[in-house]
Amino acid sequence: MTKIAVLGAGSWGTVLGSLLADKGNEVILYGNNAQVNQEINTEHTNTHYMKDWQVNETVWATANLKQALNNVAIILFVLPTQAIRSVAKEVKLVLNQSNLQPLVVTATKGIEPGSKKLISEILTEEIYPENPEKIVAISGPSHAESVAQKDLTAITCASISKENAQRVQTIFTNDYLRLYTNSDLIGVEVAGAVKNVIAIAAGILAGKGYGDNAKAALMTRGLAEITRLGVNCYQAQPMTFSGLAGIGDLIVTCTSVNSRNWRCGKQLGEGKSFAYIVENMGQVIEGATTVKAIHEICQEKAIDMPISEAVYRVLYEKSSVATEITKMMDRKPKQEIRL
Amino acid sequence: MTKIAVLGAGSWGTVLGSLLADKGNEVILYGNNAQVNQEINTEHTNTHYMKDWQVNETVWATANLKQALNNVAIILFVLPTQAIRSVAKEVKLVLNQSNLQPLVVTATKGIEPGSKKLISEILTEEIYPENPEKIVAISGPSHAESVAQKDLTAITCASISKENAQRVQTIFTNDYLRLYTNSDLIGVEVAGAVKNVIAIAAGILAGKGYGDNAKAALMTRGLAEITRLGVNCYQAQPMTFSGLAGIGDLIVTCTSVNSRNWRCGKQLGEGKSFAYIVENMGQVIEGATTVKAIHEICQEKAIDMPISEAVYRVLYEKSSVATEITKMMDRKPKQEIRL
Repeated sequence: MTKIAVLGAGSWGTVLGSLLADKGNEVILYGNNAQVNQEINTEHTNTHYMKDWQVNETVWATANLKQALNNVAIILFVLPTQAIRSVAKEVKLVLNQSNLQPLVVTATKGIEPGSKKLISEILTEEIYPENPEKIVAISGPSHAESVAQKDLTAITCASISKENAQRVQTIFTNDYLRLYTNSDLIGVEVAGAVKNVIAIAAGILAGKGYGDNAKAALMTRGLAEITRLGVNCYQAQPMTFSGLAGIGDLIVTCTSVNSRNWRCGKQLGEGKSFAYIVENMGQVIEGATTVKAIHEICQEKAIDMPISEAVYRVLYEKSSVATEITKMMDRKPKQEIRL
Repeated sequence: MTKIAVLGAGSWGTVLGSLLADKGNEVILYGNNAQVNQEINTEHTNTHYMKDWQVNETVWATANLKQALNNVAIILFVLPTQAIRSVAKEVKLVLNQSNLQPLVVTATKGIEPGSKKLISEILTEEIYPENPEKIVAISGPSHAESVAQKDLTAITCASISKENAQRVQTIFTNDYLRLYTNSDLIGVEVAGAVKNVIAIAAGILAGKGYGDNAKAALMTRGLAEITRLGVNCYQAQPMTFSGLAGIGDLIVTCTSVNSRNWRCGKQLGEGKSFAYIVENMGQVIEGATTVKAIHEICQEKAIDMPISEAVYRVLYEKSSVATEITKMMDRKPKQEIRL
C-alpha cells in the first residue's frame, strides 16, 4: 500500500485518484474548493466534474497540503499549468520539514507562459534541483470520462530514470489502463503541450467543412512540425512523437468534440471571431496560449511550423482562414521527412 | 502536356485520371469493363463508382492496353493487388515493342499472397528489373470521394530516385492535392498494406463498444508494430511510419465507416462470425488477406505484433475477442519504443 497525494481535484485527478485507491493505495486528493472536498468525503462523488460516477470511498479530499503530504510516497500533479509553480513551491516547503523524498509525477500538459518551460522543468527547479530523476510524466490519449467508464486506455510514463518510470508503471497499471515506459521525458512533454495548437487547426478545417482527408493530412503534418520542434529545440527523440503522448493524444484531441481547443477552432472556421469565442467559452483555451510561445520559439530559432504559425496569425494577426489555407497549399514542394 | 495511362477505372483511378486531365495532361483510362468505358467516353461519368460526379471530358477510356500505352510517359497502376502481376506482364510485352521507358507509378496497396512481395517489388520484377528507380509509389490518406470533392489532401510520393519522385510530385500537385517526396519506397508500401489489419482491430473495438481512448491506443500501438515490422523485415525507415502513408492513412482508415476492413471488424466485435461477414460483404476484405502474410512473417522472423496476431487468431483460429483483449491487457509491462 502506497500513500499517494493527488494535487488537483478536477476530473482527471479524481479519476486517477479513485483508480489508484481501487488498487489498494492510500489516496488523498488535495483541492482548494471546500465544497468539492466535502462532497467527495461525504457523498463520494464529484458531480461538478464527473456526473453519475462514484469515487472510491477510501479517497479523502483536503485543502490542507501538509496533511495531504504526510508520509507521502508519490505526489501526482494534476493542476492547471499556471498553478504548477506556486503549488510546487509550497510542496517544497512542506517536504523540507520532513525527510521524505517522494516521486513527483505530473499529468499536467503545458508550457509556462514567459519562461517557456515544460512542467517537469518547473518541478525540477522548484522541488528537485539535485534529483531530476525523481520526476515522472504520464501522458497519452486518456479522456478522464472514458477512463472512468473503464475504456481500454494506454498511456506513456516517462522519466530520465528507468526505475522510477517502471515504478509508476507498476503502481498505475490495471486491467483497463496500460502504461508504457519511455526515457524521453522532455519529448513526451513537448508532444503533450503542442498538440492543443494542432487541435485548434483541426477544428478550423472542420468548421470550414473540410473532410476526412484534410483532417488526416493536418494531423500528420502537425505531428511532423511538433516533431521538428521537439528534436531541434528540446533534443527530444523523434520516435517519441509517434507514440502515445504524441500521435496517440493528437488523435483523441483532434477527433473529439469534447476538446475545448478543437471547439475553439471549429467556431473560428465557421466565421466567429476569436474575441467572441474567448468571451463565450468560459474556460481557458490552452492551445491559444501555447501558440504564442510556439510563435516566439519559431521566430527565435527559425523552426518551420507552418500550421502553428497559421493558427497564430488567425488568432492574433487577424489573418483569414481562407488566406492561410491558400498560403499553405501554395508553399513550394517539400520532402516529407525534415527533422 | 504529359501522356498518362491510368490502369484501373475504379473510383481512385477515375478521380486521379480526371484530376490529371484537369491539369492539362492527356489521360487514357484502361479498364476491362466495356460498359464503364463507354459511359466514361460518352456521358463523362462513372456512376458505378462515383455518383453525381463528372469526369474531365478529355479523359478517354479503353480496354485496349496497347492503345492506352501509345506514347505513354507515365503509367499509373490503380488495380487490385491480385491483378498487378498479370497486367504488369502485359505492360512489359507492349513496352518491349517500343523504345518507351515511362515512369511506373503505383497507387495500389497490398502484399502479394504467397510471395509476400510489395507492389513495387512486383512491378520492378516484371517491368523494370534493371531500372528500379523508374518505380514511384503514391500513398496516404486519400478517400477518392473526398478528393473528388476537392477536400484538401496530402499524400506521399516515394521512389529510390529523388528526381522521379519530384517529377510525380510536380505532375500530380494542384491547389487541393499536395504531395511530399520520400525516398523510403519500401517503408511507404509496408505502411499502406498493413494498415488494413489495424483497421479491422479498430472496428472490433468499436463493435465491442469501446471508446475514444481505446481507438487512439490501438492506432498508436498498431503503428508501433507496423513500424517494427517495416524496420526489421524490410529495412524501412522508422520515420516513414509517422508520415502520410503511415499514421495519416491509418487515421483515415480507422476512423471512417466507409472502410471495408473497419466494417468487417465492427461486425466481428458485435459478435458476427467471420464466415458470415465474408459471405455478406460482397467485396474483398484486404486486411483479412494481409494478416495471413503478417502471421507467417511474425512466425518466421519472431517479430512482436500482438494486435495483428490477435486479429489473425480471431479470424482464423476461432479465438474470441474478449479472450484476445484480456490477453493483450495482461501482457507484461513494456517500454514504449522497441524497434
